[in-house]
Amino acid sequence: MVNETQHTCSASSSSKSDGGSSSGSESSKDNSRCSTPVLDADRHERLREKMRRRQDSGDKWFSLEFFPPRTANGAVNLISRFDRMGAGGPLFIDVTWHPAGDPGSDKETSSMIIANTAVNYCGLETILHMTCCNQTKDDITGHLQKAKRLGLKNIMALRGDPVGEEWEEEVDGFDYAVDLVKHIRNEFDDYFDICVAGYPTGHPEAESYEADLRHLKEKVFAGADFIITQLFFRSETFFKFMKDCQAIGITCPIIPGIFPIQGYHSLRQLVKLSKLEVPQEIKDVIEPIKDNDAAIRNYGVELAVSMCRELLDSGMVHGLHFYTLNREVATTEVLKRLGIWNEDPRRPLPWAVSAHPKRRVEDVRPIFWASRPKSYIYRTQEWDDFPNGRWGNSSSPAFGELKDYYLFYLKSKSPREELLKMWGEELTGEESVFEVFTCYITGEPNKNGYKVTCMPWNDDPLATETNLLKEQLEKVNRRGILTINSQPNINGKPSTDPIVGWGPSGGYVFQKAYLEFFTSSEIVTALLKVLKKYELRVNYHIVNVKGQNITNAPDLQPNAVTWGIFPGREIIQPTVVDPVSFLSWKDEAFALWIEQWAKLYEEESPSRMIIQYIHDNYYLVNLVDNDFPLENCLWQVVDDTFELLN
Amino acid sequence: MVNETQHTCSASSSSKSDGGSSSGSESSKDNSRCSTPVLDADRHERLREKMRRRQDSGDKWFSLEFFPPRTANGAVNLISRFDRMGAGGPLFIDVTWHPAGDPGSDKETSSMIIANTAVNYCGLETILHMTCCNQTKDDITGHLQKAKRLGLKNIMALRGDPVGEEWEEEVDGFDYAVDLVKHIRNEFDDYFDICVAGYPTGHPEAESYEADLRHLKEKVFAGADFIITQLFFRSETFFKFMKDCQAIGITCPIIPGIFPIQGYHSLRQLVKLSKLEVPQEIKDVIEPIKDNDAAIRNYGVELAVSMCRELLDSGMVHGLHFYTLNREVATTEVLKRLGIWNEDPRRPLPWAVSAHPKRRVEDVRPIFWASRPKSYIYRTQEWDDFPNGRWGNSSSPAFGELKDYYLFYLKSKSPREELLKMWGEELTGEESVFEVFTCYITGEPNKNGYKVTCMPWNDDPLATETNLLKEQLEKVNRRGILTINSQPNINGKPSTDPIVGWGPSGGYVFQKAYLEFFTSSEIVTALLKVLKKYELRVNYHIVNVKGQNITNAPDLQPNAVTWGIFPGREIIQPTVVDPVSFLSWKDEAFALWIEQWAKLYEEESPSRMIIQYIHDNYYLVNLVDNDFPLENCLWQVVDDTFELLN
Repeated sequence: MVNETQHTCSASSSSKSDGGSSSGSESSKDNSRCSTPVLDADRHERLREKMRRRQDSGDKWFSLEFFPPRTANGAVNLISRFDRMGAGGPLFIDVTWHPAGDPGSDKETSSMIIANTAVNYCGLETILHMTCCNQTKDDITGHLQKAKRLGLKNIMALRGDPVGEEWEEEVDGFDYAVDLVKHIRNEFDDYFDICVAGYPTGHPEAESYEADLRHLKEKVFAGADFIITQLFFRSETFFKFMKDCQAIGITCPIIPGIFPIQGYHSLRQLVKLSKLEVPQEIKDVIEPIKDNDAAIRNYGVELAVSMCRELLDSGMVHGLHFYTLNREVATTEVLKRLGIWNEDPRRPLPWAVSAHPKRRVEDVRPIFWASRPKSYIYRTQEWDDFPNGRWGNSSSPAFGELKDYYLFYLKSKSPREELLKMWGEELTGEESVFEVFTCYITGEPNKNGYKVTCMPWNDDPLATETNLLKEQLEKVNRRGILTINSQPNINGKPSTDPIVGWGPSGGYVFQKAYLEFFTSSEIVTALLKVLKKYELRVNYHIVNVKGQNITNAPDLQPNAVTWGIFPGREIIQPTVVDPVSFLSWKDEAFALWIEQWAKLYEEESPSRMIIQYIHDNYYLVNLVDNDFPLENCLWQVVDDTFELLN
Repeated sequence: MVNETQHTCSASSSSKSDGGSSSGSESSKDNSRCSTPVLDADRHERLREKMRRRQDSGDKWFSLEFFPPRTANGAVNLISRFDRMGAGGPLFIDVTWHPAGDPGSDKETSSMIIANTAVNYCGLETILHMTCCNQTKDDITGHLQKAKRLGLKNIMALRGDPVGEEWEEEVDGFDYAVDLVKHIRNEFDDYFDICVAGYPTGHPEAESYEADLRHLKEKVFAGADFIITQLFFRSETFFKFMKDCQAIGITCPIIPGIFPIQGYHSLRQLVKLSKLEVPQEIKDVIEPIKDNDAAIRNYGVELAVSMCRELLDSGMVHGLHFYTLNREVATTEVLKRLGIWNEDPRRPLPWAVSAHPKRRVEDVRPIFWASRPKSYIYRTQEWDDFPNGRWGNSSSPAFGELKDYYLFYLKSKSPREELLKMWGEELTGEESVFEVFTCYITGEPNKNGYKVTCMPWNDDPLATETNLLKEQLEKVNRRGILTINSQPNINGKPSTDPIVGWGPSGGYVFQKAYLEFFTSSEIVTALLKVLKKYELRVNYHIVNVKGQNITNAPDLQPNAVTWGIFPGREIIQPTVVDPVSFLSWKDEAFALWIEQWAKLYEEESPSRMIIQYIHDNYYLVNLVDNDFPLENCLWQVVDDTFELLN
């Protein structure tokens, strides 16, 4: 969801997930909602059921493995990567468990919190790894309880590597992954889907390949739902392993782990850790080009594609698991060349669906957070159910406090220096702020030659679909109507429309035109006069930072601004202009002036005081044109306002 | 709502009430619904608030008084009258309390049950009279509790006339209406709106006119909300009374009681009971024409219109209360000539809204009961709230048992002899049943010369709007597709459309085409083949009496078939095809064959066996064309089916 564009057109980089949605298999207890779209069968299925359904339907799938980053900045980048790679439609992602990185803590770089972010904020079906060695039973139970509380529903149960050289048994702990599997089943019954690791050439520490297969069978029989294998270099290795597994009675899915070679050093390190043997023919190719990263990566992609083709063509393999090393290019390239990177323009809803089981029935959100979906999810995380009672007569429950809005996943991705270049090292007046908004709209460089690719309210550049509106937007921003969100009206386009479509095929989608902006009290005064002429057609909410609130909306009722009609279903209205939540959004929208922009400058500096002035004196305005079958009248409203001012 | 017509077009005689909707002032506690249309401010107001709002806005209004009928047949007729007179938009109706008729009982003719029917089944704001003499406190409390339970929110508190000649004080009872008012306020706080009687010429038993005014003031100060007066013959009588009331500090609304003279004998009887003096000038006109009912009624209408005009023109009167004597013509005529009979084609929802406070949030119903709304209300009376959880994933709660469907307000209004004339004294085969359906559609007389004006599934004649569909319907009924419900598709007509509009102005209404019919298994077999071609477009449910159920609907999800988009509001979807409730409707729809039709004939008679055969072997089919912007394809589906059979 990007500023100034069709609100339903998410930019390619925005957080979107068709692939993973929910691991919920909660019994479908009564819910007291009048609309239950169930747009996406995925949302009601457990991971193992999704896997089975894909296998039955013959659809090939992929999954992606990531490890927790070391720094907070790395975490922000990784989450952007989740959003981008999530767009390709992975069946799930998994996050490794780093015993040395305090993996169960609340640190922004912990395994637990990264997995939490993936499931809740990026809407991805997520498996959290967990190792058992060197930990007490109670520690492990605590981690599992926390994972459950955060909405995680899948665990990869591993032994883990002992710390240090000597193997020490933990008193009251577990020695083997099989013990962890049993423990999860004992303590949490069937709540988690459990994955275990398989070693196509046998675990390096196992007595023998056969002994290792027996250990694997024990893990499966103890309650594991599927197996992901260690990486391997030849498809025959996997085929043999799979047949050997089947021969001893292992019938659950076995997913081959794919490692696209991305560089000389990463390969060497991995081989050292995994104690795997790199085949001579690969070494022969790589050694001569070891200093040419691009060449090695190209070779790695080639190699991976050809091995994956063999695997998929065998008919024995339905899904591929990728060791991404937290990198994007090589894996994405392999997936695209295999034709299983599935950037489906159709979305189940016009915004990114969270994969937390308790949010699986969420099907309506206020439009205000369209460009800040993670902030919305964060601020509503305490809500018990979605969207019951949110948009009815009862007033919305409290939104989470703003004090936490500096949390790492709500911060700008750009460093201060870059923001200053975009938004101005020095502001000379309100007009220089208008200029920044205008440059963001037009895509033209500012007077110092820098493009403005983000704004405090929009972390992403303007979507290309906005070209149609650009001229109007440029004109109004130049004159001090500082737009931060808008959508055009739509009167029944097919749900499969590549730009504005969402939901199942065979349906029709609709929108009311929407425009949201900051502007001065002078313009508001003129605007209110103009709006009298549009009283029956346009609903408005106009509010300043102190909460002074001018509106013609009936009572505190929400206004549906995006809805869809589908075969055999109830009406779905995923986006509303809700008067109550607008006041919470108002706090956030005004605070962004200060937190993201004003604080770039020295205290008491003229630049800072200009932003502070705007923050203190401007109004936040939203307008809805209710007459969706007619031509959008909101531009006329703005034109009339300027005319009145002249 | 009438068979074969735009489902949203209620025939003039169908149960419709724009006037009274709800007496609910229940605190607006949280309700967990995602759509809360609040289409009609009336639905949230108490009667006294509605009255005040009308007074503030200057809209004149009227109300209608009825008494409980003596027989069950009379009750059925009175309820039809409620529906018809309710269409004119009364602010409320009131039902008198007949101490001799066991008024608080569950008899179908009791005051309590008639008032219950008016509020719950006819959707009329209703005042129940209650008298206090000759009753114990406990009796009265019991009546009031029952009234509250049934959804009644307004009481007219009266003393009542002593039984027999002698005045006897009831031990532990009340002697005066003021005691009853106090009792209601003591026991039920502010729950009820209370009305009391005023006597423009003084109560016949009062010591004096002045003493009577003081009694009235006591009643008001004890907690009465407004006053309705005894009838009078000259507007000056009322004006003087009103000024005298104001002079002693009575400030609540005083509503004049209007008695249009409808006949010589009814006037004489009323005068005797009320001990009123008929002015000489009226006697002079009436005496000579006392045997000419029409002439007296015309005179009475003339007289009432001219007095009402004087009252309304004075600016002191905002509403008029009519003593109807359970008759329709004279009162309706007066109201139409005054211009306050308000047959607004706009309805808050496309079906009649019940006025029970607990149903005030009801905004979605299955389409199946479109022609039997009272049956739907009856069968869902135990539901706690509407429509929460009804149409979501959770299955619908149990509908009320069918065993009670012979209740008087669900019975056919026509006597057995008439039904036999319409539906055939003797049936010769399935074709003679097809013929009955066809005659109902065409409006042509059957072979014995009788018009078929109702069917077991439709108590009213075919609406005139159906002419457009008549040709198609005739064709298919003649061939054994026995239609009982249908609606055309509508793609965004204004909500003010006189035929299909509903809800507030400025909105747009939509429908998916719907067709429901009984048919043989042979036709069903062909239909299913044809439907394969329409798999993605048409949803169907096909079920026989044993419950064998064939459908292509996803899961058990409801399909919205009527919805509206309004300025500043959420989407409203008042009608759905709900797979779960269809199975309850199926029981009712099949039972009507037997209960209303087969049982007209002797047991074991060929006619009865023909209906029994249809009941046992036919299927009930419903079809929805999901592609509402395109031309309705359901007729094509039926045509293709006949083609396949040829």
